[in-house]
Amino acid sequence: MASSALQYARLHQARFLDELKALLRIPSVSTDPAHRGDVRKAAETLRDDLTRIGMDNARLVETSTATREGHPLVLADWLHAPGKPTVLVYGHYDVQPPDPLDEWISPPFEPTERNGNIYARGAVDDKGQVVAQVKALESMLATGGLPINVRVVLEGEEEVGGEGIAEFVATNPPELKADFALVSDTELFAPGLPTLCVGLRGMIYSELEVRGAKTDLHSGMYGGAAPNPFVALSQIIAGLKDESGKIQIPGFYDKVIPPSADELAAWASLPFDEEHYRQTEVGSPVLVGEAGYSVLERTWARPTLDVHGIIGGFIGAGAKTVIPAKATAKVSMRLVPAMTPTEAFAQYKAFVEQIAPRGVEVEVRLIHSGEACLIPTDNPYIQAATVALHDVWGKETVFIRSGGSIPIVGDFARHMGLPSVMMGFGLPDDNLHAPNEKFHIANFHLGVESIISFLERVAGL
Amino acid sequence: MASSALQYARLHQARFLDELKALLRIPSVSTDPAHRGDVRKAAETLRDDLTRIGMDNARLVETSTATREGHPLVLADWLHAPGKPTVLVYGHYDVQPPDPLDEWISPPFEPTERNGNIYARGAVDDKGQVVAQVKALESMLATGGLPINVRVVLEGEEEVGGEGIAEFVATNPPELKADFALVSDTELFAPGLPTLCVGLRGMIYSELEVRGAKTDLHSGMYGGAAPNPFVALSQIIAGLKDESGKIQIPGFYDKVIPPSADELAAWASLPFDEEHYRQTEVGSPVLVGEAGYSVLERTWARPTLDVHGIIGGFIGAGAKTVIPAKATAKVSMRLVPAMTPTEAFAQYKAFVEQIAPRGVEVEVRLIHSGEACLIPTDNPYIQAATVALHDVWGKETVFIRSGGSIPIVGDFARHMGLPSVMMGFGLPDDNLHAPNEKFHIANFHLGVESIISFLERVAGL
Repeated sequence: MASSALQYARLHQARFLDELKALLRIPSVSTDPAHRGDVRKAAETLRDDLTRIGMDNARLVETSTATREGHPLVLADWLHAPGKPTVLVYGHYDVQPPDPLDEWISPPFEPTERNGNIYARGAVDDKGQVVAQVKALESMLATGGLPINVRVVLEGEEEVGGEGIAEFVATNPPELKADFALVSDTELFAPGLPTLCVGLRGMIYSELEVRGAKTDLHSGMYGGAAPNPFVALSQIIAGLKDESGKIQIPGFYDKVIPPSADELAAWASLPFDEEHYRQTEVGSPVLVGEAGYSVLERTWARPTLDVHGIIGGFIGAGAKTVIPAKATAKVSMRLVPAMTPTEAFAQYKAFVEQIAPRGVEVEVRLIHSGEACLIPTDNPYIQAATVALHDVWGKETVFIRSGGSIPIVGDFARHMGLPSVMMGFGLPDDNLHAPNEKFHIANFHLGVESIISFLERVAGL
Repeated sequence: MASSALQYARLHQARFLDELKALLRIPSVSTDPAHRGDVRKAAETLRDDLTRIGMDNARLVETSTATREGHPLVLADWLHAPGKPTVLVYGHYDVQPPDPLDEWISPPFEPTERNGNIYARGAVDDKGQVVAQVKALESMLATGGLPINVRVVLEGEEEVGGEGIAEFVATNPPELKADFALVSDTELFAPGLPTLCVGLRGMIYSELEVRGAKTDLHSGMYGGAAPNPFVALSQIIAGLKDESGKIQIPGFYDKVIPPSADELAAWASLPFDEEHYRQTEVGSPVLVGEAGYSVLERTWARPTLDVHGIIGGFIGAGAKTVIPAKATAKVSMRLVPAMTPTEAFAQYKAFVEQIAPRGVEVEVRLIHSGEACLIPTDNPYIQAATVALHDVWGKETVFIRSGGSIPIVGDFARHMGLPSVMMGFGLPDDNLHAPNEKFHIANFHLGVESIISFLERVAGL
């Protein structure tokens, strides 16, 4: 029989969804200075709701320093379960930019229900999951209190590197002292399949700037004598990765630890069809990447390199015959255990400087980075989560990794000794970081129930 | 002793410059639909001035068709010199876009005098030269009439490919019937050195679109499986040109006719210092381009390939971890005699399709094109211009080529049998198509005098 907290959650589903919609209407795009006020407004909304549901000490903690403008952390706690473990509940309330805007079917900041989903920027990444966490806490607080001690930390810089929370966590602050973390920023492996994520890739995100002439030049007058930064940048990028997808940076793969035979066997038994994935999720003529590895290995356990855009030159309609003075590519690499961002960036920077063609100057800037991590599956919190998810979803829980990066998980482990339980409720086709981001509404509600069941089960450990 | 027309021109220099400034204040950016009205306003301004100075039949001729929105031609004539030759005076009143705006010292459409120059978008390309033509006609009309018959055709699409005038000229229209053309859209080889341009490169301007996934994807989730259009585009661009600057398209150089030994000898005697050119005009660490050719050969007599910008992806501040669905490069090639745009584009397109990496679809679109051309220096109009320029500037006139493209010169020759006299008054450091475009004010006034002297000398042929 369902606990009273679960019954409360089911009774209040409509209101929970309305509250999510209200949060989704706030365009808390952390990378865009124009949305600075909106980011704060999202933080204040969550702080006020945490107070309303009965959490203690709900407050904002500023992360700005003399040299950077940060977005605040939202903190709260409830520590009235003596002798019980303490969970640190983590999520983020900032979102990716919504562009390209013209590809959204409904506006990104007007949450819209279609086909059992709610569409909006941040629906699944990560506001829908944060609200699921808060509403799980509300359901328990409203029906007798929390079964374990809870601390909450929500950040507003996850989409821009999470520097503020990283600095805070690095001090191992008493406000975050806990036994484990609950991170809800991941997805189910397949619809209806309860999933725990136990591995994340790390990353380095960089800008690669190439400068040629001192000013923009006419390509008729100077074509054949002046260096073209776009051509030089293309040559560098083409040199970073061969056509088979293998990164050419010397030493880049030296530290890579391959998955265990057991883990590979478990991945092989997951319900995954490469051709279906290609057709429904990617939609390209063929999939690409390193030869000799499955898609799951390539996206979960191999380092990769992507270019996100190139700034500079003429990108308007029609023709402009200019040799631009400079071009700047946004280049990132995903890292796997046991690569380190520091070493990978140094290898990358040195190689770019080595292969840069004559006639241009290059500058490689690190924008942000995060470490890869792996969670041992034999820890008691992962075991409790495995059983709780089975109870709610009625299926055996699977362990997966994610190709994405949640640097805070590594920070929790490194600085505070906290293992993380990555329990998320997104779906593979939720369009994270893309137009028409969505969250399956049933998963939102089952997410609330999963978190309740999980914390109740931890109380019984 | 100066003719009365020359005396008139000297007397009215201040007003001529004011009239140029008024034209420069009109942002007639032909590639930008938002400036459509401004382009027309510039045409109307010139039409009205041609009427005012005494030309007959000054009028706009529309170039729009059912399938394209064109900008009007400005036509006028004065045919009261029976027995004398007829010149077709050509220039263009449209300008390049002013971006990047933040690199202009004074605003691009607020003409500003500094150091004996006038700074504005279009100052030298080509409004300053068009106004020099019109003011030369005014000076002669105000002092007894023109020495030869004159027709004027000014276009508003030169910076976007000149499709309208090309279609008009292709019909060999009676309104443009003449013995030769005077084209003022070029530059002096060096300050104070009278120069005739007798060769132009042709061009093809294209968009190269690469499509991967059906939608933008998260680079964490899909990096290692989804094709990255920016990486694929970089591989294609890197494949088009090797590091020595040699274009790799099969057959691309087959039709190239090298300059004659005489022409090469004349170029070798021009006052040109590669190191000075590198430092003052280009400013890159070294000059680039095909080995074995001088800078003048590489920019005047060799085909080249440039990339002007790449559309797509994330180019905002900060970080967005997206694998864009597509990327589109603006790619152009300069052509030399006797390459044809049709064949060069076909070779380029076929090669791109051949070298495109797996996982992406490519589409190569031709935006516009123009033929290269060479003018024989033994024609009487070139000879008259040579002497006239010597008279005004007090130095021997030099013959150069330009690396740029003025497709109309080829069209005048091919469709109407007209040789062109390319007499222009820009300077090599005038920042064509770049921020801080300028026109040396002394050259503007000497340009007026040069055109008067030239037409007077043609009258004596």
